[in-house]
Amino acid sequence: MSNQADEVLVVFTPSGKRGRFPVGTPLLQAARYLNVDIDSVCGGRGICGRCQILVSEGEFAKFGITSTAASLEPITAPELKYAERRELKSGRRLSCHTKVLNDIVVDVPAESQVHHQTVRKGVEHHEISLNPLVHLYYVEVQEPDMHDPSGDLRRLLNALEQDWQLTNLDYEVALLPQLQALLRAGKWRVTVAVREGKQVVAVWPGFHERLYGVAVDVGSTTIAAHLCDLVSGEVKASSGLMNPQIRFGEDLMSRVSYVMMNPGGDGEMAKVVRESLNALIQKLVQQAECDITDILEITFVANPVMHHLLLGINPVELGGAPFALATDMAVNMPAKDLDIQLNPQARAYLLPCIAGHVGADTAGMVLAEEPFNHDAMTLLVDVGTNAEIVLGNRHRIVACSSPTGPAFEGAQISAGQRAAAGAIERIRINPETLEPRYRVIGSELWSDEEGFAEAVGSTGITGICGSGIIEVVAELYLAGVINQDGVIDGSLISVNPRIQADGRTFSYEILAATEQRSAIKIMQNDVRAIQLAKAALYAGIKLLMDYQAVKQVDRIRLAGAFGSHIDVKYAMVLGLIPDCKLEQVSAAGNAAGTGARIALLDEKSRPLIESVVRQIEKVETAVEPAFQDYFVNAMAFPNKVDAFPQLAQVVDLPPVKEAPVIAAGRDGRRARRKR
Amino acid sequence: MSNQADEVLVVFTPSGKRGRFPVGTPLLQAARYLNVDIDSVCGGRGICGRCQILVSEGEFAKFGITSTAASLEPITAPELKYAERRELKSGRRLSCHTKVLNDIVVDVPAESQVHHQTVRKGVEHHEISLNPLVHLYYVEVQEPDMHDPSGDLRRLLNALEQDWQLTNLDYEVALLPQLQALLRAGKWRVTVAVREGKQVVAVWPGFHERLYGVAVDVGSTTIAAHLCDLVSGEVKASSGLMNPQIRFGEDLMSRVSYVMMNPGGDGEMAKVVRESLNALIQKLVQQAECDITDILEITFVANPVMHHLLLGINPVELGGAPFALATDMAVNMPAKDLDIQLNPQARAYLLPCIAGHVGADTAGMVLAEEPFNHDAMTLLVDVGTNAEIVLGNRHRIVACSSPTGPAFEGAQISAGQRAAAGAIERIRINPETLEPRYRVIGSELWSDEEGFAEAVGSTGITGICGSGIIEVVAELYLAGVINQDGVIDGSLISVNPRIQADGRTFSYEILAATEQRSAIKIMQNDVRAIQLAKAALYAGIKLLMDYQAVKQVDRIRLAGAFGSHIDVKYAMVLGLIPDCKLEQVSAAGNAAGTGARIALLDEKSRPLIESVVRQIEKVETAVEPAFQDYFVNAMAFPNKVDAFPQLAQVVDLPPVKEAPVIAAGRDGRRARRKR
Repeated sequence: MSNQADEVLVVFTPSGKRGRFPVGTPLLQAARYLNVDIDSVCGGRGICGRCQILVSEGEFAKFGITSTAASLEPITAPELKYAERRELKSGRRLSCHTKVLNDIVVDVPAESQVHHQTVRKGVEHHEISLNPLVHLYYVEVQEPDMHDPSGDLRRLLNALEQDWQLTNLDYEVALLPQLQALLRAGKWRVTVAVREGKQVVAVWPGFHERLYGVAVDVGSTTIAAHLCDLVSGEVKASSGLMNPQIRFGEDLMSRVSYVMMNPGGDGEMAKVVRESLNALIQKLVQQAECDITDILEITFVANPVMHHLLLGINPVELGGAPFALATDMAVNMPAKDLDIQLNPQARAYLLPCIAGHVGADTAGMVLAEEPFNHDAMTLLVDVGTNAEIVLGNRHRIVACSSPTGPAFEGAQISAGQRAAAGAIERIRINPETLEPRYRVIGSELWSDEEGFAEAVGSTGITGICGSGIIEVVAELYLAGVINQDGVIDGSLISVNPRIQADGRTFSYEILAATEQRSAIKIMQNDVRAIQLAKAALYAGIKLLMDYQAVKQVDRIRLAGAFGSHIDVKYAMVLGLIPDCKLEQVSAAGNAAGTGARIALLDEKSRPLIESVVRQIEKVETAVEPAFQDYFVNAMAFPNKVDAFPQLAQVVDLPPVKEAPVIAAGRDGRRARRKR
Repeated sequence: MSNQADEVLVVFTPSGKRGRFPVGTPLLQAARYLNVDIDSVCGGRGICGRCQILVSEGEFAKFGITSTAASLEPITAPELKYAERRELKSGRRLSCHTKVLNDIVVDVPAESQVHHQTVRKGVEHHEISLNPLVHLYYVEVQEPDMHDPSGDLRRLLNALEQDWQLTNLDYEVALLPQLQALLRAGKWRVTVAVREGKQVVAVWPGFHERLYGVAVDVGSTTIAAHLCDLVSGEVKASSGLMNPQIRFGEDLMSRVSYVMMNPGGDGEMAKVVRESLNALIQKLVQQAECDITDILEITFVANPVMHHLLLGINPVELGGAPFALATDMAVNMPAKDLDIQLNPQARAYLLPCIAGHVGADTAGMVLAEEPFNHDAMTLLVDVGTNAEIVLGNRHRIVACSSPTGPAFEGAQISAGQRAAAGAIERIRINPETLEPRYRVIGSELWSDEEGFAEAVGSTGITGICGSGIIEVVAELYLAGVINQDGVIDGSLISVNPRIQADGRTFSYEILAATEQRSAIKIMQNDVRAIQLAKAALYAGIKLLMDYQAVKQVDRIRLAGAFGSHIDVKYAMVLGLIPDCKLEQVSAAGNAAGTGARIALLDEKSRPLIESVVRQIEKVETAVEPAFQDYFVNAMAFPNKVDAFPQLAQVVDLPPVKEAPVIAAGRDGRRARRKR
């Protein structure tokens, strides 16, 4: 534009985009011209308030603005009306109704940008780009005219094309029965939800600005969900429920067995999980005080069996070799076909499963952790009844699942329990006296600190949770109570009476029995269970390291509840995870759930994860002979096949016994790439 | 290809395509190379028998073939197996297994071509191009492999891509729950239905070759449907039912009123019509002995109110100005969303409505009659309670609906009845004696022929059907019993006692009363009802002729049951239709239903009719002042505003009275084009 006297300079921050415009140009129009990202649902009618900008005060010599004359026309009637109805903070204006008079710097706050970033909750603060699939558009529709007998639908589509340049729009046929009444209820003014710029999926009379989505992590044990505002990206409500399928079987394989033994069992299980989802959504909706019909998207992560059962697919093929998935692709379908009650036009998106044992939950973790964007060789581990393991970087990613069993979750451990108030979660054992001190969930005090008894009460201590078990076994090992082979040393009975004989083996008593409960002890079998679990995990990791042909990893991210609570030092002492600088080992929170939330908020993440998953190389531990070798060799503490040089710098590890050398012979495999 | 000694000439008829191929080339492969249209579902495995060709015997000098050596390898084992299982007529071979040895002429019979023509049933023999939306493909799917953990779905899609070059296929998510069991039941051999080359919609284990569709005409009174073979195009079964909505109101407006008075009435009416459709489909399936899950498509024509009620749309907006349709676009949706039980993945297609009074049935008539492909100015008329009128040619088409009322269907006529056995359908009145002779439905004899009484029995004559009423009024007019103003001439009482005084007006008695029934008479009010109906029809036609700026039409096609039974000469005598050469006036049969069948069999017809309908100019008779003028002036016999020169050449019309001249003033309107 030419630098004429009747033109003024407009600079938008933070983008820095600038241009000269005729005096009297509305700021929204100037922003559109410069491709500045400013939101608007009502199309410049002063209704939605989405296009708010902040007038930057003072002189801006760096932009060459020195005038102190009034830069903008005074506040307008529509803005005052909006401010009455809602709130217009000081310095804010509606850019659609603000005309420029003089050179000016205008700030576009994050919430006025269509594609702003939203902060993730959780241990680490990531950002998620906000590109929801569904957007709202307010339109005024031409009324019907006998001389031009077009249908109401066509006139609605014409309005969307004229006002919003949305061409060749498709529509949900199910909207037709309501359309005429809605248009008339809104006096020919309606707000329309359009999915992917392609399809009209909902219509509300008048102006409507609420639009939500739900991200769900369907775990074998719990179902967790977040209700998200698709406009701001905020989490409006979070909730969880037990997975009701537990009554058909505690773990995945027992549920698959149930289906094998009970024809129709897959249908029963699909039904109960879908009912739970509806109950969970009701909780979210009540919490957020929103209307269920404003929910237009739902995304899911789940392990393969949960994924198949949710879809109503018989999971029996996942119960035996070759563990064939019905589909390894993302599934995008009407939510109502899953019997999920949201807006009737809501769609469900299930992230892709990676392989028969590596599910959409792992895909969610990969999407959240983005190893494909890093140079560092990153190890992602999500420990549950199975451990999902992913190893890679921007060049190559490999993944497998390893059958760790439920020991890490406190199951099949004599004093084990879920992570809940009263469970021992931290423990230290004096290497001289072999006396323990510990902390329980719900109290910040150690057991030898003043007030501990009052804070907890001895009957309040109920067992040991998963992370507590890791610590107690590791501390016992570091104290010499357990040797490298995992045997509790009976000769220490004389040092401390907590070492007790239990038949032909020994145990370590943390708390003596009370009237309310049995003694809390670590039995020889408990140590064995931990050895089996950690050997399975470590063998899986080693296998992937072979595939990647690396001797060590650069970063370790531990996902899930277990990963969040565990002290990584003890995990490494026991050899759950390979040697790594301790500061490079961290918890990733519910990474799978975060993946579901990203897929909900950022449409670009869907093709991204679908493409990444296609490139992930899947390793089936069951058919890898090396897995068995690694497994056997990983039973000991610490792992015999590796040294832990970096760990040894921070922990005083017991001397390592001579380890038998295993034939490698894996080089051919290591180099193999699928196709 | 070079003309080498080890290459031979292959000529395909009827296409005439030819090429030279190495000795031993299978004929199907040669055909593919030359783009000769030969069908195959099994992909050259000798299973489906679709690729049959006929070996042309003898010398073919015109193709330069003079060799008489054996042209083909002897019949193969797979062909013998097929011939055992099915039938392989003499001279026929399966082109996939027939290798060429010498120069040869090969005929591809119509049924082996993918895109062959199918003959229409009915009065005129049109052809419909066969391009069904859904095709079948037989594939062998790779079994799952732990080392390559792709899902079953992906391997199915890979097979379709490899064997049939179907790339980027989408799929119906609802197939997922059955997919794994189907693949295993078929031992990894399945037949897949693909819609529009884009989406997998059905899977059957093993080889499957049955694929059907249903075309439905939902009338206010009756619902008629054809079950069609989507492979051959044949009609396998036809059936009809009364529209059960009749209990909510005999005609359209009384059904709209019912909805206005009874909230939820639209839902009730949608329910009963959908239930009827399911009953009708059951009848068709039993008649054709086919499996309902082999039906993958259903198409509908209907008037606007029936169209909206079928879709569950409240038709109340169609009951008053501005008569706004919910949509004027074609509707393509899952059939199950209409509660229609076919294959769960079947889709329903509703032809577009043209305007609030001109429905998808008229669109069907336009598709069947193709005025857009003719130079001749063609008038299409479908007479029911309303008359749908279309006038146009390849340059321009206009359409309207005119409120004729039910007189033409024999309703509101004293002796009127539906067209059924016992109804008078033909009548002649002697202009001298005024004595009638007539024929009744169910007998070929005239009433003055020997054996008539036995064939019918006097008690067997029950009334007059719609076409009979037209004839009797026209004959009375030609005999001078009725004058140009429609008045029954009482002075003729002396000529024949059939002319009788009925209060202040007169009537004409065809049959005296018996113990079983009243007299069959034409009352003055009956003549008035016919005058009103024919004036409405004629006024609508005149209005469209004004829009087209033509004084006469070149062709007239009369659709529907009324159009099929009426003697066009009498229709013209009464002035129902404008003057036209009689040989250019013909019945079109159930043109709307034919349109539904075309939309079912030929996917190309769908975008065609959608585009044509968009270009049809809709004329709303209710807001056209000229319509009232034409209506008043068309009350007389024959129509006062036009002469009938061509009719006068074949019928001895009574002298025309002086007609009042109507102000034209329509030229501005005539020239007006929408946009």
